[in-house]
Amino acid sequence: MVSLDTYIKTYQEKINQALEKAVNPLKEANRLTDGMLYSLRAGGKRLRPILLMASFESFQEDTNKVMSTATALEMIHTYSLIHDDLPAMDDDDLRRGKPTNHIVFDEATAILAGDGLLTYSFEWIAQDPLLSATEKTTLISWLAKASGPTGMVAGQMLDLLAEDKRVTIDELEKIHRLKTGQLINFAIKAGAFLGGATQEQLDELHIFSTYIGLVFQIQDDILDIVGDEETLGKPVGSDEENEKSTYPALLGLDGAIKHRDNYVAKAYEALENVQIGESKLFDLTKFLTERKY
Amino acid sequence: MVSLDTYIKTYQEKINQALEKAVNPLKEANRLTDGMLYSLRAGGKRLRPILLMASFESFQEDTNKVMSTATALEMIHTYSLIHDDLPAMDDDDLRRGKPTNHIVFDEATAILAGDGLLTYSFEWIAQDPLLSATEKTTLISWLAKASGPTGMVAGQMLDLLAEDKRVTIDELEKIHRLKTGQLINFAIKAGAFLGGATQEQLDELHIFSTYIGLVFQIQDDILDIVGDEETLGKPVGSDEENEKSTYPALLGLDGAIKHRDNYVAKAYEALENVQIGESKLFDLTKFLTERKY
Repeated sequence: MVSLDTYIKTYQEKINQALEKAVNPLKEANRLTDGMLYSLRAGGKRLRPILLMASFESFQEDTNKVMSTATALEMIHTYSLIHDDLPAMDDDDLRRGKPTNHIVFDEATAILAGDGLLTYSFEWIAQDPLLSATEKTTLISWLAKASGPTGMVAGQMLDLLAEDKRVTIDELEKIHRLKTGQLINFAIKAGAFLGGATQEQLDELHIFSTYIGLVFQIQDDILDIVGDEETLGKPVGSDEENEKSTYPALLGLDGAIKHRDNYVAKAYEALENVQIGESKLFDLTKFLTERKY
Repeated sequence: MVSLDTYIKTYQEKINQALEKAVNPLKEANRLTDGMLYSLRAGGKRLRPILLMASFESFQEDTNKVMSTATALEMIHTYSLIHDDLPAMDDDDLRRGKPTNHIVFDEATAILAGDGLLTYSFEWIAQDPLLSATEKTTLISWLAKASGPTGMVAGQMLDLLAEDKRVTIDELEKIHRLKTGQLINFAIKAGAFLGGATQEQLDELHIFSTYIGLVFQIQDDILDIVGDEETLGKPVGSDEENEKSTYPALLGLDGAIKHRDNYVAKAYEALENVQIGESKLFDLTKFLTERKY
């Protein structure tokens, strides 16, 4: 049994290679391809595709079948970061210690690199010879819904509207469920679907993934207070400085930790109900809860 | 036989209704839906979906089968206009005599409305109960390719890079083929594919649609010189003022007209080869060539 650390590193490498293989050959406009590759290469935990692969592996072995979907999912996540960082949105010059896309290139290229990654993600799934037409249609339908105007894009809109406002815990969770939660739902469900999960299992995994999505977000907020700048690769305390609505701001630090641990327990409960025996999803849940970066 | 004018008006109305039906129910973030609807309602010729429907009708009657694809295509076209008008791109305050999306809302909303329309277009096709999984996968694959980083998005990138530069006629046509041509290719091919065209017919229609795509663009350039501001709904002479590379700038006005007529002849020739007898595509080609707006 490989350690979780080795598992994550191995799969990150697999995903990085798959992203290069997908995007490197695009040669109609080199500056556009460069812009897309820059942000894909800027690192990141590859959390969403790893969750997708681990979910699939709870049912089947050969992960080749999910690589195009995992890759497409990371393209969508990356496009959303490029657009979120734009001056008109969150106006961030740095991400993971590196200059953001519009700083290295320019705003126009960043907008187009995002548009390109978003569009290409659907093409990438649609052309996969390892998937049936029905599988592809289901995946594309789910992925578009999770990332579109009733999913991630709506979440980003609501997040922008909530700036400089005190929101309630329910409003905050609605934003997180849309902005980051739905793509994590997709990761877990798509992997299980391709692995052959039953509808009951998909339903339990939906619950599981909703809780780990929120745990991920709460932990982000907690790390902004108690985290170590060097380990995190970004400055801490910025949420408080920007008067951002966060779990600790609404519940206090101890309250946020309790809230997180409550969701962690519910996530484990749902995962037990899936009845897949040992699964890397248990370890990954532990990782999400205890992560320091 | 209805006149072309009535045909266009009837189908514009059908498409407008289909767009409302698709986008109006999206309620997660009202400002986002408002932004999407604003640009969808801002008018436009609905040229691409009408070409798609006319192409389908050259083979089959009941256009219900193509409505989701026609609607998705117009969503993609509309998203591209919203993003192209942004300050970081072409920086246009007016389109079709109305303030552009980022002027009415703001840049962030405009970026997200574009992202939302783009993503939703794929969801809209993927959820259509009238299409088979194989049809949907083919359509999504073609549409993503036509509008993505080796299609429209690449064209917009090259167009921005060509600003304030003298380009050759070949470079100009490469930009047009990518930026506007591929979506027109898609319109014609998707309609014929859903109508049951043979591969030979699809190949001829690909040639046909490439020529009418270029004719559309040349006519745009010509109208910017000889057009009537009121009929066009926009000021003329702006291309020359902005020293834009256009067909008349490269070939002279007479040269551009000759170039257009040469392509028109080739378009008709390809269309004859499809052997579909009488088809609205003949009338639409005439309309594209002679249009005054």
